[in-house]
Amino acid sequence: MSEQKFRVESDLLGELQVPAEAYYGVQTQRGINNYHISRKKMRDYPEFVNAIAYVKLAAVQANHSLGVINDEISGAISQACREILEGKLHENFPIDMMQGGAGTSVNMNANEVIANRALEIMGHQKGEYQYCYPNDHCNCGQSTNDVYPTTIRLTFILLNKRLVESLTRMINALRDKGEEYKNTIKMGRTQLQDAVPMTSGQEFNAFANNMEEEILNLERNVKLLHEINMGGTAIGTGLNAVPGFAKLCTENLAKLTGEPFTVSPDLVEATPDTGAYVSYSGALKRLAVKLSKMCNDFRLLASGPRCGLHEINLPPKAPGSSIMPGKVNPVIPEVTNQVCFKVIGNDTTVTFAAEAGQLQLNVMEPVITESIIESVTWLCNAIDTLTEECIKGITVNAEHTAEMVRNSIGIVTALNPYIGYKQSTKVAKEALETNRSVYDIVLEKGLMTKEKLDEALNPQEMLMSHKFVLK
Amino acid sequence: MSEQKFRVESDLLGELQVPAEAYYGVQTQRGINNYHISRKKMRDYPEFVNAIAYVKLAAVQANHSLGVINDEISGAISQACREILEGKLHENFPIDMMQGGAGTSVNMNANEVIANRALEIMGHQKGEYQYCYPNDHCNCGQSTNDVYPTTIRLTFILLNKRLVESLTRMINALRDKGEEYKNTIKMGRTQLQDAVPMTSGQEFNAFANNMEEEILNLERNVKLLHEINMGGTAIGTGLNAVPGFAKLCTENLAKLTGEPFTVSPDLVEATPDTGAYVSYSGALKRLAVKLSKMCNDFRLLASGPRCGLHEINLPPKAPGSSIMPGKVNPVIPEVTNQVCFKVIGNDTTVTFAAEAGQLQLNVMEPVITESIIESVTWLCNAIDTLTEECIKGITVNAEHTAEMVRNSIGIVTALNPYIGYKQSTKVAKEALETNRSVYDIVLEKGLMTKEKLDEALNPQEMLMSHKFVLK
Amino acid sequence: MSEQKFRVESDLLGELQVPAEAYYGVQTQRGINNYHISRKKMRDYPEFVNAIAYVKLAAVQANHSLGVINDEISGAISQACREILEGKLHENFPIDMMQGGAGTSVNMNANEVIANRALEIMGHQKGEYQYCYPNDHCNCGQSTNDVYPTTIRLTFILLNKRLVESLTRMINALRDKGEEYKNTIKMGRTQLQDAVPMTSGQEFNAFANNMEEEILNLERNVKLLHEINMGGTAIGTGLNAVPGFAKLCTENLAKLTGEPFTVSPDLVEATPDTGAYVSYSGALKRLAVKLSKMCNDFRLLASGPRCGLHEINLPPKAPGSSIMPGKVNPVIPEVTNQVCFKVIGNDTTVTFAAEAGQLQLNVMEPVITESIIESVTWLCNAIDTLTEECIKGITVNAEHTAEMVRNSIGIVTALNPYIGYKQSTKVAKEALETNRSVYDIVLEKGLMTKEKLDEALNPQEMLMSHKFVLK
Amino acid sequence: MSEQKFRVESDLLGELQVPAEAYYGVQTQRGINNYHISRKKMRDYPEFVNAIAYVKLAAVQANHSLGVINDEISGAISQACREILEGKLHENFPIDMMQGGAGTSVNMNANEVIANRALEIMGHQKGEYQYCYPNDHCNCGQSTNDVYPTTIRLTFILLNKRLVESLTRMINALRDKGEEYKNTIKMGRTQLQDAVPMTSGQEFNAFANNMEEEILNLERNVKLLHEINMGGTAIGTGLNAVPGFAKLCTENLAKLTGEPFTVSPDLVEATPDTGAYVSYSGALKRLAVKLSKMCNDFRLLASGPRCGLHEINLPPKAPGSSIMPGKVNPVIPEVTNQVCFKVIGNDTTVTFAAEAGQLQLNVMEPVITESIIESVTWLCNAIDTLTEECIKGITVNAEHTAEMVRNSIGIVTALNPYIGYKQSTKVAKEALETNRSVYDIVLEKGLMTKEKLDEALNPQEMLMSHKFVLK
Repeated sequence: MSEQKFRVESDLLGELQVPAEAYYGVQTQRGINNYHISRKKMRDYPEFVNAIAYVKLAAVQANHSLGVINDEISGAISQACREILEGKLHENFPIDMMQGGAGTSVNMNANEVIANRALEIMGHQKGEYQYCYPNDHCNCGQSTNDVYPTTIRLTFILLNKRLVESLTRMINALRDKGEEYKNTIKMGRTQLQDAVPMTSGQEFNAFANNMEEEILNLERNVKLLHEINMGGTAIGTGLNAVPGFAKLCTENLAKLTGEPFTVSPDLVEATPDTGAYVSYSGALKRLAVKLSKMCNDFRLLASGPRCGLHEINLPPKAPGSSIMPGKVNPVIPEVTNQVCFKVIGNDTTVTFAAEAGQLQLNVMEPVITESIIESVTWLCNAIDTLTEECIKGITVNAEHTAEMVRNSIGIVTALNPYIGYKQSTKVAKEALETNRSVYDIVLEKGLMTKEKLDEALNPQEMLMSHKFVLK
Repeated sequence: MSEQKFRVESDLLGELQVPAEAYYGVQTQRGINNYHISRKKMRDYPEFVNAIAYVKLAAVQANHSLGVINDEISGAISQACREILEGKLHENFPIDMMQGGAGTSVNMNANEVIANRALEIMGHQKGEYQYCYPNDHCNCGQSTNDVYPTTIRLTFILLNKRLVESLTRMINALRDKGEEYKNTIKMGRTQLQDAVPMTSGQEFNAFANNMEEEILNLERNVKLLHEINMGGTAIGTGLNAVPGFAKLCTENLAKLTGEPFTVSPDLVEATPDTGAYVSYSGALKRLAVKLSKMCNDFRLLASGPRCGLHEINLPPKAPGSSIMPGKVNPVIPEVTNQVCFKVIGNDTTVTFAAEAGQLQLNVMEPVITESIIESVTWLCNAIDTLTEECIKGITVNAEHTAEMVRNSIGIVTALNPYIGYKQSTKVAKEALETNRSVYDIVLEKGLMTKEKLDEALNPQEMLMSHKFVLK
Repeated sequence: MSEQKFRVESDLLGELQVPAEAYYGVQTQRGINNYHISRKKMRDYPEFVNAIAYVKLAAVQANHSLGVINDEISGAISQACREILEGKLHENFPIDMMQGGAGTSVNMNANEVIANRALEIMGHQKGEYQYCYPNDHCNCGQSTNDVYPTTIRLTFILLNKRLVESLTRMINALRDKGEEYKNTIKMGRTQLQDAVPMTSGQEFNAFANNMEEEILNLERNVKLLHEINMGGTAIGTGLNAVPGFAKLCTENLAKLTGEPFTVSPDLVEATPDTGAYVSYSGALKRLAVKLSKMCNDFRLLASGPRCGLHEINLPPKAPGSSIMPGKVNPVIPEVTNQVCFKVIGNDTTVTFAAEAGQLQLNVMEPVITESIIESVTWLCNAIDTLTEECIKGITVNAEHTAEMVRNSIGIVTALNPYIGYKQSTKVAKEALETNRSVYDIVLEKGLMTKEKLDEALNPQEMLMSHKFVLK
Repeated sequence: MSEQKFRVESDLLGELQVPAEAYYGVQTQRGINNYHISRKKMRDYPEFVNAIAYVKLAAVQANHSLGVINDEISGAISQACREILEGKLHENFPIDMMQGGAGTSVNMNANEVIANRALEIMGHQKGEYQYCYPNDHCNCGQSTNDVYPTTIRLTFILLNKRLVESLTRMINALRDKGEEYKNTIKMGRTQLQDAVPMTSGQEFNAFANNMEEEILNLERNVKLLHEINMGGTAIGTGLNAVPGFAKLCTENLAKLTGEPFTVSPDLVEATPDTGAYVSYSGALKRLAVKLSKMCNDFRLLASGPRCGLHEINLPPKAPGSSIMPGKVNPVIPEVTNQVCFKVIGNDTTVTFAAEAGQLQLNVMEPVITESIIESVTWLCNAIDTLTEECIKGITVNAEHTAEMVRNSIGIVTALNPYIGYKQSTKVAKEALETNRSVYDIVLEKGLMTKEKLDEALNPQEMLMSHKFVLK
């Protein structure tokens, strides 16, 4: 069995062994050694690794155009970045997502991997940094404090696309149900009390429209992520970036990714700013709030089978109980609810982290990254599951829902224009107390003719506006 | 019309006019001028004003015993404190509850009111501080940084008594319902799906027992408030408090209030510590979580009247709708839910404030005070309303709940010991698919004798454990 | 002494005494009786009362145009609404802001006040509802479930204008400081460690720009409040609103208020939807997060006077301590921090309330209203105080900040382009260990010429980008 | 290459393939198929798997003692449980931690693994459930609704031991620093303003004592986890558990684990109750709040090296910047802060989940489990890192801290007892305005003799109480 080989690298703190085969270097190794918190590594999130490769590529292209880095080195660095984008070097990003240092480990990890791969491309050995130095060449005109924020912005933008796709599929499934049950009359409920009739299709379409607003809301907030601070370097003053770098690097990144990135108008302001993350996390929270509400409704409407509302049936996914035979539980909405609670909790985390910024930097960005990535990926997974394993299979007990409408007191509302709220109130009260129907009582009291009453209490008629004149 | 008269006082910042009749002085006036945030004043909370009077009284008694302040001055200060405790000078505490300065305005307000009243008692004029100086005599051996934390601890302790009384009345009302409906069979539900039978009385008693745990939890956490830091002065080192002051002042406060106060073993640690507030706010949040859950259940069980569970009736408190005649909504549980959400939000506020402590002090204590006082008083009000206007008038639709049990599939669970989970599952499945009763299917299949089945499916029998042997 | 007179009114629940002089009626009286939670009444918030008057006016105008209500009654109702808008009847809105019923009490309060005032205008007595019935005429084509959401949206829109004005004044004050100290060199800090130089003016302008983004963010989110659901009535199906009402009422409201209101495309979806409130509360939270961060920075930069950073001086507002003479504390930033924590807590409350919607309504809207109104008004108050009592009076200790830069190690960063990161690291390390200056060490080692070094280490030069070429 | 083999099992929903070698069965397989949310599996948490093995062992022992299950089967089940406790079958718990069904998948996973291993032990094949049925034998007298809550309680108890150990090591490290620097004078600060002197040792000891309170607080709240609901079965009525099971099973579990478990006095109340989780999560949050505050203080005290407080030095763990040579950042406190924010966010998640309980169950317990386990394990990791990589290596710049005290104005506080607050204020003001020392001014004004002044301003003397008499 072969033993592991090492090479020795050094930095401000001294020498350290790095696995000989590793593309990363001494500073990455320190990051590996320092952080043992979660079991989530950067490499577990391909969008994250790719995002920093895009940023580094945009930067080296800018430095090359501006005459700061020569053809050979910039060519090698560019090729290394492209290889990462092809998925080739992802395993070399092993640092814990939970880390101190405001992302310096992430930036240096990228600088080192790119430098070592560039060295190889140029015919050198890993670690021969005299030919391409991670901090000087790969990080040229850059600082963690512009690279890291730009990288996570791009990461969130990439992940958000997946989320929008998941939402779109769910909305389509909801619209299909809306179409399927567009004529199924059911009782609407406000404050959990019987209100007035509607259709099951209206209910499903309302969910669909509600979720479509969430796509719009996500996209509104994603836009805030397009303003980046490349070129600001350490604190936004641009020290060590050559004139023109900010603009050119940003244009390059926009070109490479197809995303409309712009340079922040005040790079000093932009460096510690976490507004866009707070907003985007807030959009995820808003989605979670609504998704949870929809799942609550699914579970409520599916309550029963015999002692609940029993309006809808969710597809059975597992025996519901270890003790109660035949029980089937709404497990898919339940897991979705819980994902939503986690997203809401993550928003609290992001809020705390954002408030903790100090002076020219917010050092708590890694936990913002971890939390938002967790929220988005879990939401994607939950929404996909909800769509495929639950929504698509929902059926409505149309006979039962129609019977509830017929039997209800709430339909008395439709009589207001004819007999007034006060008279209607008396009818409703009598119906409740005597357990009789609104229809019978109105007829008996001679408040309306049978023809007029039949028309007014026709459930289909209650689904829309009608002309009337108040006395 | 008489115009307002003023006297002029001065402090570090210079001279300032104070209303001639006011017992408070220049520093209180600065507090009035500085803070215009909420409309809540200290004087709106008698427990708060009384608490600081208790603290100041305990302190002057200690200083007198220890020979620091002479008979005349300490006597006058004591009398002034007692007058506050009799409710006489509360109007003189006009500063906004939302304030900076870590409570210095509150402490100085008390020092000034007490000094001026003491001056009058000794035959001097208000403002003749050469005879009794707010900072030297009334604040002797003290600092805001020990007086304020001690004061709010006592305030919370006093308010908590009201909360426990409100909870006790609610628990009694719940127990009355438990007794009233102890034989009313109803269907238990898990995951909103029909489970197995129980009684309505068990349900009410479970709420009562659940809330009784909250009393215990509050009291467990109130105990943490009994450890105080009097004698620590500015940062806990005790500078300017004479030896023995911490112990004696604490003993005096315990004697005056009947509360078992103790001296914190590390006053430097105690000065910035907010652990007890976080814990007590957490106990309020836990109560809110459970109270909200109970109100959710009330609203769910009362859903209907014809298209919901309709198990219980809440007393009607208002016409439920401006448009739907006869509708009655569960408005009292609804307002209680919302109070709970506010309490939960306030706990977030307390968490932020507690985390924001720095070095030797937590300067964010005033918002902790405001939030906890709001949470406790709103909870008291909501619980009293819920008890009187809702719980006491709840009735159960016993016939309907019994019918639901008879009609259910969940009762098949009781057959597991006789026919096994697998066979029971088949019965349940057939019942669901054919819309028939468990009873009929079991008999038809000859799985059990009629006698055995009648016994096993007797709802009363399902409320308890039975002896059986597994094959 | 005259005793209070009453008139008797009745509703679904029976008869009730109402003060004879009151414009409100029986349902308002029930609301008064039912809710004793906070001490905040609707009438304490003029924007809220005016908002519902606008809504009722827009509705009656629509109903009149559509021929549903005749000239006389609609004229009287319109006049009553206008009188409210003139501030005349605000005292008649006495119900607790914390309430159940999803705002029904608020809607009925308006309906009753308007009906009774309209009755008087038409020459009738209060309570002679046969001539103008609160539910039939004032609420015509409406339900609490469209009136209340529309009203609070307008309320938030009106309040937000005040907030934007407060923010604008604060931003101007920050820009003034930015201009005043545009040439004052100071050390930038990241992760609380010395970084590279910047100016104090850049720091103030960054705060200004940061806050300007908050205005944009508020306005982005206010836009979501412009989509309303008038015409949806009880659950969005439009039952009892005549055809055309939704569109016309919305246009009227837009005309009356100058706000670009539009009809929600799916009124069933819109009825229980709380997305816009969650977003707007989220925008308030984001503002709070940033405002708190700025106040933290103010307090940190003002730390001292002799054992802290002592970069800036905040205007003294009060003696800082009851025990420590001469101490002055940053009380205005402190109270602002605490307001921010309350706003963040209120956002948690809003999140809980929004998630608690069920089926066709969210009954928790009153606590959303209470929380958002509290957040906005407290923010206005805090920001005004911060602007006037703190920011405008800030001064910078320019000599001290310049000295810190000269003395720093961080300036070595500017040498990277000349001597490389690795060599710079060695210089920095030696400076730290020997307590000498970067300048001396570089010269001594002969790494750069004196001329080049003087140029590179000129603080003014470090504030911007420079051209260089990497080896 | 060998292809995977399967066996076929069936349940309520029909047949399903299960890997032939797997000890789990059809219901676990459904769980695997249903939940693809996080990448965390039950098997990743050995304490969790062991906890359910303990519960199942305690239950089968009770059922055996009570004559419900015969010697052979109970013996085989017991042995299977013991093998899990030896770590042998952990790989067979592959379901996602994020799941619906209130933990049914977890309970059935255990039932199936135990049944299949028991079958092997008895000489049967996996899947030959006629000899030992997961639901009948392994789950005898049990339901997910008592097994799952009991299991997670035990899990939290086991994990908490690790947390207390980590905290203990950290406290010891802090106490060592307290001892090391017990005579190092430094300036205390309140509201970030210079206050009065203290020692660095007092500061470290205060942190130690503060954290020791957290151990007490954790243990207070862990006690609540000892009350369990075994024997309640589905909803707490005990249906299908034989008389005596609750008591005996609880005693067995106590004996097996050494933990003082007790039977809840009201099993109906206990089934949906989440109070203990809310409390324990609240204790984790309180710890996080304090730990974050301590890390904030570390970072503040270590600010510099030349433009900050520079009181302490944290051991360097990594080059601090990709652009600023020589910069070293407080990365370990930073990552700890972020873990704290995550714990606080998780507490929000737990709060939401707890509030979402309905009627006889809280179905959101899995996310409570996931969140609390994450919080505890991350806290352990962060605290261990903080202890070893940061606290143990902290050094204090004693010369600098002493110089700050000598130079301070705050020491004037010590003169109050001699010259009064008013006179001291004048001295302080003059010192501030003239940039002179308190000492010189007092002498110059002849307010005290040099001897008395030397004594009063001796920093060592300011660390404690002194006797004095007020004029």
